[in-house]
Amino acid sequence: MGKVIFVSAGPGAADLITLRGARALQRADVVLFDALTDPALREFAPQAQWLDVGKRGFSADATAQTAIDALLVKMARQHALVVRLKGGDASIFGRLEEELEALAAAGIPPDDIEVVPGVTAAIAAAAQTQRPLTRRGQGRSVSLTTAMTREGDLQGGKSADTEVFYMAGRQLAALARKLVEAGWAPDAPCSVVSRAGWPDALASEHPVSGLAAAALLHRGRPTVVTVGAGARAVSARPRKTIKATGLAQEQARTRALSD
Amino acid sequence: MGKVIFVSAGPGAADLITLRGARALQRADVVLFDALTDPALREFAPQAQWLDVGKRGFSADATAQTAIDALLVKMARQHALVVRLKGGDASIFGRLEEELEALAAAGIPPDDIEVVPGVTAAIAAAAQTQRPLTRRGQGRSVSLTTAMTREGDLQGGKSADTEVFYMAGRQLAALARKLVEAGWAPDAPCSVVSRAGWPDALASEHPVSGLAAAALLHRGRPTVVTVGAGARAVSARPRKTIKATGLAQEQARTRALSD
Repeated sequence: MGKVIFVSAGPGAADLITLRGARALQRADVVLFDALTDPALREFAPQAQWLDVGKRGFSADATAQTAIDALLVKMARQHALVVRLKGGDASIFGRLEEELEALAAAGIPPDDIEVVPGVTAAIAAAAQTQRPLTRRGQGRSVSLTTAMTREGDLQGGKSADTEVFYMAGRQLAALARKLVEAGWAPDAPCSVVSRAGWPDALASEHPVSGLAAAALLHRGRPTVVTVGAGARAVSARPRKTIKATGLAQEQARTRALSD
Repeated sequence: MGKVIFVSAGPGAADLITLRGARALQRADVVLFDALTDPALREFAPQAQWLDVGKRGFSADATAQTAIDALLVKMARQHALVVRLKGGDASIFGRLEEELEALAAAGIPPDDIEVVPGVTAAIAAAAQTQRPLTRRGQGRSVSLTTAMTREGDLQGGKSADTEVFYMAGRQLAALARKLVEAGWAPDAPCSVVSRAGWPDALASEHPVSGLAAAALLHRGRPTVVTVGAGARAVSARPRKTIKATGLAQEQARTRALSD
């Protein structure tokens, strides 16, 4: 039995992988990779056999996942080091659970498994737009959700100050309706980002009620929707101009600008 | 005016920085860094002036943040490339908003600013324990929260299938009470991880009601608490042994094992 390292490749662009992940690739005998990972990552592991097990979003059925599980176990039995390369972070909407279960069922102990964390799509989108997911006072919690469940239901909730929806690109009009039903104001800010971290990343902002307008721009691209406090642009806040005489007004104005 | 790159260093260990982040360090003239970043990161930028602006958790007051903001602006005016190195991911509990505001107020345009995303603590903890934050069926949403607000209030909610609390180490008994008040079952699983990603990482598991027992083990270390679906260990699920005659029982057993 060999060792299996799950490597989180980050949101796409090869240079958003961690050093630890890149070094695992350099030592790999076999790499099982998904559709959303950058072909440039192959340059880290020219010595390895690369096997495409690509599937995108939730379109793949359980059979496809079972086939990936079986291939992973088979490779682990034949090679010293197998890297399972996943887009984003493996622990967040990466179906890591299924593959860990398959390895456990095959008798591969946790000590022969390693998970290398990575940059998940929500974080990449925030970096792309310079819009932090947490904010002082108004943005103390962040929720990460898939817009679409595996059963094909659309989810749109309001459980945190900032909500980030993964795999949201195809359902923007329906998501907007769900968000309003869940209690978001129709004019609450949304930031929509596709291909975050790539040179051709696109970002747009909309009120919840106008979210459907983002569909054309981001069509056919991996898209993340951020709603609430963390979707607002950051702008200058005049800290240094406070005068003792006008302090109360200035504090009020500062709050208005920053909240 | 120079360029400012916010580089997310990841949870600590130097090899959990992204390649993009490491390359930014290699080009930096000045690096402003926090207490929680690995001293080994200095090897990426021996040419740079390293300025310690360290502060940990929420112990620093607003004055300290204002001083960091002012130093960042001053350095940006004097140097071609300033790297602001932050532990974890800058967009999640990293006070990125304050520093972006300060740059905007100083007239530094967004085009001269870049944010490099990184591995946030919740994800590092999940990788460390091989416990994915999302699970099939039962774990469809993840919430990231600070256990302690800036005003010193303790927060413990139940808004997602998996809740991850940052900066939770000092308040475990109080957090356990808040979690039960918020609706978590006293026997709901908690995974406690400190120094995730380092060779000396520690992990322990507890029911919510026994969370206080983790205090001694993780004392004085950066600690993340995960509660709910994503806190459960992954174990083998016998997929291949289903017989047509025993299908209903097997399905029930499979659910019991995996839920």
